[in-house]
Amino acid sequence: MLKVGIIGASGYTGVELARILSTHPEVELTVATSRQYAGKSLSEVFPNLRKRVDLVCENLGPEELVERADFFFAAVPHKTAMDLVPVLLKAGKKVVDLSADFRIRDAAVYEEWYQPHSSPEFIAEAVYGLPELYRDQVKEARLTANPGCYPTSITLGLAPLLREGLIDPAHLIIDSKSGTSGAGRSAAVGTLFCEVTDGFRAYKVGGTHRHIPEIEQELSVLADTPVTISFTPHLLPISRGILSTMYAPLQEGTSEEAIQALYEKTYAAEPFVRVCPAGSFPATQHVRGSNCCDIGIKVDQRTGRIIVMSAIDNVAKGASGQAVQNMNLMNGFAETCGLMGAPFFP
Amino acid sequence: MLKVGIIGASGYTGVELARILSTHPEVELTVATSRQYAGKSLSEVFPNLRKRVDLVCENLGPEELVERADFFFAAVPHKTAMDLVPVLLKAGKKVVDLSADFRIRDAAVYEEWYQPHSSPEFIAEAVYGLPELYRDQVKEARLTANPGCYPTSITLGLAPLLREGLIDPAHLIIDSKSGTSGAGRSAAVGTLFCEVTDGFRAYKVGGTHRHIPEIEQELSVLADTPVTISFTPHLLPISRGILSTMYAPLQEGTSEEAIQALYEKTYAAEPFVRVCPAGSFPATQHVRGSNCCDIGIKVDQRTGRIIVMSAIDNVAKGASGQAVQNMNLMNGFAETCGLMGAPFFP
Amino acid sequence: MLKVGIIGASGYTGVELARILSTHPEVELTVATSRQYAGKSLSEVFPNLRKRVDLVCENLGPEELVERADFFFAAVPHKTAMDLVPVLLKAGKKVVDLSADFRIRDAAVYEEWYQPHSSPEFIAEAVYGLPELYRDQVKEARLTANPGCYPTSITLGLAPLLREGLIDPAHLIIDSKSGTSGAGRSAAVGTLFCEVTDGFRAYKVGGTHRHIPEIEQELSVLADTPVTISFTPHLLPISRGILSTMYAPLQEGTSEEAIQALYEKTYAAEPFVRVCPAGSFPATQHVRGSNCCDIGIKVDQRTGRIIVMSAIDNVAKGASGQAVQNMNLMNGFAETCGLMGAPFFP
Amino acid sequence: MLKVGIIGASGYTGVELARILSTHPEVELTVATSRQYAGKSLSEVFPNLRKRVDLVCENLGPEELVERADFFFAAVPHKTAMDLVPVLLKAGKKVVDLSADFRIRDAAVYEEWYQPHSSPEFIAEAVYGLPELYRDQVKEARLTANPGCYPTSITLGLAPLLREGLIDPAHLIIDSKSGTSGAGRSAAVGTLFCEVTDGFRAYKVGGTHRHIPEIEQELSVLADTPVTISFTPHLLPISRGILSTMYAPLQEGTSEEAIQALYEKTYAAEPFVRVCPAGSFPATQHVRGSNCCDIGIKVDQRTGRIIVMSAIDNVAKGASGQAVQNMNLMNGFAETCGLMGAPFFP
Repeated sequence: MLKVGIIGASGYTGVELARILSTHPEVELTVATSRQYAGKSLSEVFPNLRKRVDLVCENLGPEELVERADFFFAAVPHKTAMDLVPVLLKAGKKVVDLSADFRIRDAAVYEEWYQPHSSPEFIAEAVYGLPELYRDQVKEARLTANPGCYPTSITLGLAPLLREGLIDPAHLIIDSKSGTSGAGRSAAVGTLFCEVTDGFRAYKVGGTHRHIPEIEQELSVLADTPVTISFTPHLLPISRGILSTMYAPLQEGTSEEAIQALYEKTYAAEPFVRVCPAGSFPATQHVRGSNCCDIGIKVDQRTGRIIVMSAIDNVAKGASGQAVQNMNLMNGFAETCGLMGAPFFP
Repeated sequence: MLKVGIIGASGYTGVELARILSTHPEVELTVATSRQYAGKSLSEVFPNLRKRVDLVCENLGPEELVERADFFFAAVPHKTAMDLVPVLLKAGKKVVDLSADFRIRDAAVYEEWYQPHSSPEFIAEAVYGLPELYRDQVKEARLTANPGCYPTSITLGLAPLLREGLIDPAHLIIDSKSGTSGAGRSAAVGTLFCEVTDGFRAYKVGGTHRHIPEIEQELSVLADTPVTISFTPHLLPISRGILSTMYAPLQEGTSEEAIQALYEKTYAAEPFVRVCPAGSFPATQHVRGSNCCDIGIKVDQRTGRIIVMSAIDNVAKGASGQAVQNMNLMNGFAETCGLMGAPFFP
Repeated sequence: MLKVGIIGASGYTGVELARILSTHPEVELTVATSRQYAGKSLSEVFPNLRKRVDLVCENLGPEELVERADFFFAAVPHKTAMDLVPVLLKAGKKVVDLSADFRIRDAAVYEEWYQPHSSPEFIAEAVYGLPELYRDQVKEARLTANPGCYPTSITLGLAPLLREGLIDPAHLIIDSKSGTSGAGRSAAVGTLFCEVTDGFRAYKVGGTHRHIPEIEQELSVLADTPVTISFTPHLLPISRGILSTMYAPLQEGTSEEAIQALYEKTYAAEPFVRVCPAGSFPATQHVRGSNCCDIGIKVDQRTGRIIVMSAIDNVAKGASGQAVQNMNLMNGFAETCGLMGAPFFP
Repeated sequence: MLKVGIIGASGYTGVELARILSTHPEVELTVATSRQYAGKSLSEVFPNLRKRVDLVCENLGPEELVERADFFFAAVPHKTAMDLVPVLLKAGKKVVDLSADFRIRDAAVYEEWYQPHSSPEFIAEAVYGLPELYRDQVKEARLTANPGCYPTSITLGLAPLLREGLIDPAHLIIDSKSGTSGAGRSAAVGTLFCEVTDGFRAYKVGGTHRHIPEIEQELSVLADTPVTISFTPHLLPISRGILSTMYAPLQEGTSEEAIQALYEKTYAAEPFVRVCPAGSFPATQHVRGSNCCDIGIKVDQRTGRIIVMSAIDNVAKGASGQAVQNMNLMNGFAETCGLMGAPFFP
């Protein structure tokens, strides 16, 4: 049994990690940290874990942590992660970092969108943990940078088209909608129930969301040319779920049938990517609680554009589920171990 | 007091009309029809109307209806309206038609997207009932074609840019999200609570929604050139509200400040269109229950595109509120009469 | 025009007061205070008020306030109100206090459930502002203690039975459910969207909620004997609305028809209390956004108990709507002025 | 691998059975029936099952069914089940029946609340499938009558008190609230999204809900005396979840600590019943998607009553989860097999 620790267990990604790991046959959760809830049992903070996870939250520094587990999920905010992760690595531990700190390969780009990076020397060895694109590298990694939720939905949705050069990335419009769990568990007026329910709005409009450099990095790799996107995130009155609706001019003469076949072939062997049958489209309520990414496509004959829709559960495939998928790969477990539960509906 | 009738009172637009009219000082609601609920009081069908509206639903043909009121709201499905409305007009009544039957000026286009039109001779005199664009014509009309909900949000959102030629309509992407009341009150599995709540999805993807010809008609008038759009509607887990997010390349050298000023000037005197202050964006929960349309803009400097966001309550400004606004204009009442209630929040 | 001020305008009762007053023909809102948002326009804090309310939040003490209006709504927390209200009264102003500070007639009871009372001498003249019970007194009052939301729903629901001695109050069970707006607008983890949505739970179980002494006070007056209740509040994943389900043994030999007739007669002339027709029951979605209280009754023949259900909008009839109703009475306006809007549905 | 069939797979209990069974290591789902969707793949009806369940819905009679599996879940409406189940039993199959047809031991009581029973001879051998009460009998059963959702939450909540004679069942009040999935997946206006969301109401008030005889049957067994209850169900704007709030006079001199200890002892070894720590209470969002039943208690010192709150996921422990728990017991599998997933939150 691999001894596993969650650093920053009191957020929504923390509780989801604990939930998934509680039935994972290859690991034992041995430590969970939380500054705010130190001394409280994790199941007191998250009663859903009662009788399922039996751990007390601790407030531990990295030096103490390395004594307690062999594999770590860093579920702390960016900036905190960049100081913490190197200590773990130097102690010979493997890490999945759920923050943004090791996702951007170019430290200058990172620093433009975030802040100065204190451990740039570790960026190079970090593997971008999107297994559908970087499976082999993840297997060898000791540090995986777990992708952001929006980037996961977008990259998986566009990969087949960009790789084949079937769309013009200069006109790529990405309109994404996320459940409120993406905003985290901090007390804030803007995410109070009464402010969010029965409503809908955009935020960080106009090219300002910090996931943009990460998305552009991955799309550029796929397109083999620099890609600049228009990206607008919106806040949905749901807990979990992201749907990205993406528009791009399709190469002339390409049929919807050909695109549909391309997607089905690309993802046929992927356990977590599911291509919707022709004429049907993804819905967040059909991936909820699972590590699945559902993708649907449609060609608009009137405009020559293709519309790609991609749905994930932002807490699962967009964060903790994907993190466990990476952990599985990094430790030689079956990639799907602990993750094959079907989405629950209704 | 103007005697007013609602034809098709048992849908969501019907109950909203009855709600608004119940405190309207210039009118008396004298008849409400419903085939399904004939003989039941309207407040039995919609208990929110108890002690506020005291009418029994009746099943009446147009010949009987004309005896009962002098002004009519036709809140029946398209196709039904095209047969009904001419009878009312011929009897000297004025009508706001909430269906699509008289919105499309080109009967051939209508027939391409809907079905054969039985009363094409009445299309020419119908005024498209978007008062912010056609106020003077509405005042003179005896038949107003009340705009669709998506078209209302989109047309008001884009009018200033298109009129001034500031965007390239060839690359116009419109990503709209609507509350479930837009789907009507018919029993259907797809709009059951458990199918919609905590979820999100697109529908009628790829240029197939019937509001497209109506939107393109109005945008083309504004742009003074034929406009073809990419339009994707989505279903939100909320009752009321539409948010349209619109993307277009902005004419080079145009500043965000200039656009903001243009919008503020354009809509300064409009009682129902509210331009969000620079840097803030509309939200459906801030227009709920009102006849308001809130519009926000943002320029993405990285891509040279402008993003326009427009929010309405689809049942109010997107249907019944706008219908009453048109009724006011058609009868010489103050345009805002009965409609100045602020949106309720939370 | 009566000059009116809202003290504490940045909470949910504040914005609802501003919304209602914005179309009230007899008053002018001249001042709104908020410590937190001083200097910001109220419509920046609550964008639903844009183009409808044009006031800037100010941070003013009571001495400054009395220069700015002639009538005040005190929408501040209890304890703050007891210091503030006397200053306003001494300056000759009339006040509706929305806090609990002047609701409990026995200062000792107040102090047992809340804290020491700094202005007990004003308790005696405060009128409990439930117009359906104390209309004449409210008309003469210069200080009205606006009832709590739970007490409003419960007292109106049980009044006919208790007055007539038709139930045994010793076995009164009250199971209430409230929308989340009742928890206020303070940032707190417990009322975040993700903690509340798609969920349901009780809180302050076992006779600990501070509305209990207020409820028991009013029920005891009605029953003319001390009443002790079992009361359990619950948190609903809705914004607005309270439904109270109340159980009591019914006097033997009393028919459901007789009770139904009693309720209909009791509330026949009340504009805001609506008795559901026999066999139908209230729903929070049918009173939403209105000052209505809907009541339904049913006798359980198997157990000899009566079940009374009472629904209000906690922000309206449970707070700001009722406050305006009291203001109307205290100033000789029509009681229904500004409040006759039907509930909006859907 | 046990070959298992789901009869009536297109409802919410059907999809949940398929979801749970898709990762159950001891069984293979070999057949799923649906009259309405015959010929469609189950994952077309329920896209959450895509790539997880690979079966086509069939329209088969019982004679054909018995060739296709060795164990059956009958997820058909009552009345249909009473004709179907005997055929399966006679063919030597074991069955968990999710309908009400074999829950009521007294056929006369069944017929009073439902309709004539066509197979009363099978009632006697049916075991009431609440494993926490009838574990040993379930293990030996060939027919298990899976309990109703309300009865499960109520019976588990009250069992310790009734067995010990600590409450007076003559004054038992049960106020239950259920998510909308309990109403099933049939198209109906009353359960449309817009009718349910942002609302709350009671239904089947006054001793008329058909779960009453089932609840009273089980409570009477536990109390060893006939129990008659006041029971009011309510409809919550959530998909999954039941919370029952139960009130009864507590035997004098019994402390809250003693009751808390009694509950903890009673359920200590139960994998699916979780007693909330003293002072904390259950919430539906903390059992969602799991087979757990969370119970909390509180004594109201002012009234001498105890309040018991019990939360389940009505689709899981209230239906399909419990059905799989029974299947496990009937086939000698570990009782928890396939069911130990923690509730997901948020």
